Amino acid sequence: MKKYDLPKFIAKCGASVVGSVSQEGFPYIKAMLPPRKVDGDTLYFTTNTSSMRVAQYRDNPKASVYFFQKGRFSNRGVMLVGYMEVLTDDATKCSIWRAGDTIYYPQGVTDPDYCVLKFTAKRYRTFCCDFNVDLEKF
Amino acid sequence: MKKYDLPKFIAKCGASVVGSVSQEGFPYIKAMLPPRKVDGDTLYFTTNTSSMRVAQYRDNPKASVYFFQKGRFSNRGVMLVGYMEVLTDDATKCSIWRAGDTIYYPQGVTDPDYCVLKFTAKRYRTFCCDFNVDLEKF
Repeated sequence: MKKYDLPKFIAKCGASVVGSVSQEGFPYIKAMLPPRKVDGDTLYFTTNTSSMRVAQYRDNPKASVYFFQKGRFSNRGVMLVGYMEVLTDDATKCSIWRAGDTIYYPQGVTDPDYCVLKFTAKRYRTFCCDFNVDLEKF
Repeated sequence: MKKYDLPKFIAKCGASVVGSVSQEGFPYIKAMLPPRKVDGDTLYFTTNTSSMRVAQYRDNPKASVYFFQKGRFSNRGVMLVGYMEVLTDDATKCSIWRAGDTIYYPQGVTDPDYCVLKFTAKRYRTFCCDFNVDLEKF
């Protein structure tokens, strides 16, 4: 089976779908922008510090990130399972900041409502395709 | 704000994204085909009895179903939170069976690997839009 390159697949998907667990134990799902940076098994996202997702990850870092492409009969995708960290230090915030981000964070890179979600994958599962990643597959 | 009709929005999305919680407490995500039937706050999906998702829902029925449309700057979507039941009785299986389903379930409507996921929403949360549904919004 052809092995896809994960960063290229992620870039083609155009959206990320992130999973978290609520305090009541329900799985929560949200579509986010693609990760700003993909570094091996680590993904970096920009997000709002005030968001529900940030509160959930601070409480429970167990997370998943899913990328998929719709197909006629099935969906091609990959689910990465791991841990999400909320980073608010200026060095990290600067490292993935882009000029146009003032659309979302009017105060710029030090906007207190701008933070970084750092996801570290531990395992992965694929659907209808395979990837060349160095992680335990299940 | 314009209120969207949930069944129409679901039909336009073309895919469902379902969330479950693994035994280790991680949120799992999978894209599935659109629900076969939408009846108020209840959605019916066809799926494989042997799938990991079915095993998880039998163990822990806490679930979410997410529908979204990608946008340039943000994603329009709705997350329904509730409970997933796994139904294997012939009456339910027949009620949403379609002739073409033999592509997925070669033995037809009584194929033991064909079952129905019945999702009952309890609450909902919207992103960048609103819906005319009779559920608690959070």
